[in-house]
Amino acid sequence: HLDTARLLEQLRQLGAVGQDAVGGGRTRIALTDADKAGRDLLVAWMREAGLSVRIDRIGNILGILPGAATASGQGGLMIGSHIDTVRHAGALDGCYGVLAGLAVARAFRDAGVVPTRALVVAAFTNEEGARHQPDMMGSLVYAGGLSLQTALDAVGTDGSRLGDELARIGYAGKLAPGALVPADYLELHIEQGPVLEAEGLRIGVVESLQGISWQRITITGTANHAGTTPTRLRHDAGYAAAAVVAFLREQVVAAAPASTLATTGSLRFEPDVINVIPRKAVFTVDLRDPDEPRLRAAEARLQAFLAELAEREGVVIETERLARFEPVRFDGALVGEIEASAQRLGLSHLRMTSGAGHDAQMIARIAPAAMIFVPSRDGISHNPREHTDDDQLIEGARVLLDVVRRRLGG
Amino acid sequence: HLDTARLLEQLRQLGAVGQDAVGGGRTRIALTDADKAGRDLLVAWMREAGLSVRIDRIGNILGILPGAATASGQGGLMIGSHIDTVRHAGALDGCYGVLAGLAVARAFRDAGVVPTRALVVAAFTNEEGARHQPDMMGSLVYAGGLSLQTALDAVGTDGSRLGDELARIGYAGKLAPGALVPADYLELHIEQGPVLEAEGLRIGVVESLQGISWQRITITGTANHAGTTPTRLRHDAGYAAAAVVAFLREQVVAAAPASTLATTGSLRFEPDVINVIPRKAVFTVDLRDPDEPRLRAAEARLQAFLAELAEREGVVIETERLARFEPVRFDGALVGEIEASAQRLGLSHLRMTSGAGHDAQMIARIAPAAMIFVPSRDGISHNPREHTDDDQLIEGARVLLDVVRRRLGG
Ligand SMILES: NC(=O)NCCC(=O)O
Ligand SMILES: NC(=O)NCCC(=O)O
Repeated sequence: HLDTARLLEQLRQLGAVGQDAVGGGRTRIALTDADKAGRDLLVAWMREAGLSVRIDRIGNILGILPGAATASGQGGLMIGSHIDTVRHAGALDGCYGVLAGLAVARAFRDAGVVPTRALVVAAFTNEEGARHQPDMMGSLVYAGGLSLQTALDAVGTDGSRLGDELARIGYAGKLAPGALVPADYLELHIEQGPVLEAEGLRIGVVESLQGISWQRITITGTANHAGTTPTRLRHDAGYAAAAVVAFLREQVVAAAPASTLATTGSLRFEPDVINVIPRKAVFTVDLRDPDEPRLRAAEARLQAFLAELAEREGVVIETERLARFEPVRFDGALVGEIEASAQRLGLSHLRMTSGAGHDAQMIARIAPAAMIFVPSRDGISHNPREHTDDDQLIEGARVLLDVVRRRLGG
Repeated sequence: HLDTARLLEQLRQLGAVGQDAVGGGRTRIALTDADKAGRDLLVAWMREAGLSVRIDRIGNILGILPGAATASGQGGLMIGSHIDTVRHAGALDGCYGVLAGLAVARAFRDAGVVPTRALVVAAFTNEEGARHQPDMMGSLVYAGGLSLQTALDAVGTDGSRLGDELARIGYAGKLAPGALVPADYLELHIEQGPVLEAEGLRIGVVESLQGISWQRITITGTANHAGTTPTRLRHDAGYAAAAVVAFLREQVVAAAPASTLATTGSLRFEPDVINVIPRKAVFTVDLRDPDEPRLRAAEARLQAFLAELAEREGVVIETERLARFEPVRFDGALVGEIEASAQRLGLSHLRMTSGAGHDAQMIARIAPAAMIFVPSRDGISHNPREHTDDDQLIEGARVLLDVVRRRLGG
């Protein structure tokens, strides 16, 4: 039996941690004080549910319900996601998957059923990558795709070192990341996009995840007076940055509008004064495509445009890779089991691809993995208006529990 | 006799107030602590030179050398400029004109000559408009072009109220702005542009000043997930802002490249996170043209583009006027006298227009005014690399003294 009231109540409580003064959102960026408060709450809830809690050296939180065969969590079934957020976030992105995992563990405990293998509920560090890049960092380190040291040395947008922040909030654990290798991995998440709602369907059976390419671009020109500098003598870092953002939308995305996505979410000028031509512009480029060759082509077109622009405007352009993940195809057997569960529970469903990156994408490197989606109202996420109806949240958790039961008994 | 060594020494000393930790510049934004430190130094130097110092209610500093006919400064000859700076500024913009005015007053004192009318050395508040708009604020209030109350109520880019900052640094004086009406006004300034250097000339005889249009534009879209939101469903405030900046350069400026200038010096995104489509973009537009109808046409094209863009992208666009000054033609007689002085001193010269806004532009509303320029190396200003050779600085001050002598005796 799934205690759905408790699940919804915990979602509400965790969603209240780090609430913004205005706008109804919350900001629980990884390894800030608000993230620590959220972690403390989660750890308390895990203990209360009888899980043994272990923290690894990148701060991933593992709550372990021992299995008949595997007490340690080695070779267990892992249900994971994250509890960090972007700035001014909704309440569901990440938390839903972690707390549903906890609800599944509670269901086993409450029923007095010992799973055949251990059940591990994981909350991975810094999935969002809002301050320290790359995103999906905790699960990437867990899967061996990034060295612990490189991750700890990551410098954030505020100049902070990730390892220092992790130690500061008291979540630099002892366990080696990846020490417990799961035999299978499931992640339940809100879709964060418009597809399920548009199709009027209840469950997304996620069989793949698109590729993600993140860069930070720094353009250096010459600060000069806005009133006295003839246009032909300008080296305007601000205009050059704007030209890149416009190029991405009007040329790169326009060439494959149903496939390639481009976003500049962060952009800063220096000195950022009304009558001074910007000396410097620093901005991010987020490129995505489910098709790897097409993602490569978008990156190449951007690169060529930057070279041309540097020449034309007399500016220096540097690019720094912040994250690069190829598209991932999830485990066919698990995907099939999710589909069968939805079917069994009488929930309409659709095989689909994920637009967002998820920890499942990283863990798929070391274990068979798949994901379950529920609809997002108006397809909105990374926004305080992110919303999924309670009954839909419960349906997703029921599918998760059903799949787990088929694998672990109970 | 002009004490040129003292002038250069004072320029060096004032230029050291508010020095940046790196980059060799200084940041003395109006009504900050650094501005207060600069003001204190200037006031001490004025007193030391025997001037009586008066501060008006917008914080303009007036150093008065009484004349034979006019002891109070009423109907005097005013030499003015400013000592506030942009962020990471050079040492000369503004300070040169104020300190050269002080050097001229000292020359009268040292020679024991009482001018026929009072000589007033003015340092106007917030000429740069880097934090609180409009720019040329102190001289604009002085000339009656902006009410004292509106100026005091100006809210800065950091949310501060100008009047509070002014009181905080102790420069909210008692004198009504504009109480002392000058009979003539001169301003000596670095060119801040490339013309004199390119032509190999020593003195700019400034006969006009281009129009300036400043706006703040706020675009509000919808924050959403960078990976899950199809392009056709986006309301991307960041892309829309970039499209405006690109449009200004590629369409508006391109239509009259030798006349219209457009600059976006400041731009900020919200929430400014790599994988979040910006909900909001706030940026400035600085448009200039020596020709008023052409400046109006540029404003109109921008307005039309914004309307089109709002429709196309489904974003809300608000514009706020921060400053608007029509082109100004300086006093023909004064311009002629400057030209004659340069001629007499054997200095090559050119009648020219000013690209930058200056306090002279405001004071021209209440008194005959004109300006003298000296060359700027590489045409660079609003940059720590701003530079004019000492001998050129001295030549400019000599022309200023010569013009003043012709008007005030000595
Ligand atoms: N699920 C989610 O929002 N992940 C953040 C990483 C991304 O930008 O896709
Ligand atoms: N001289 C000067 O830099 N004035 C600042 C106002 C402007 O932007 O032109």
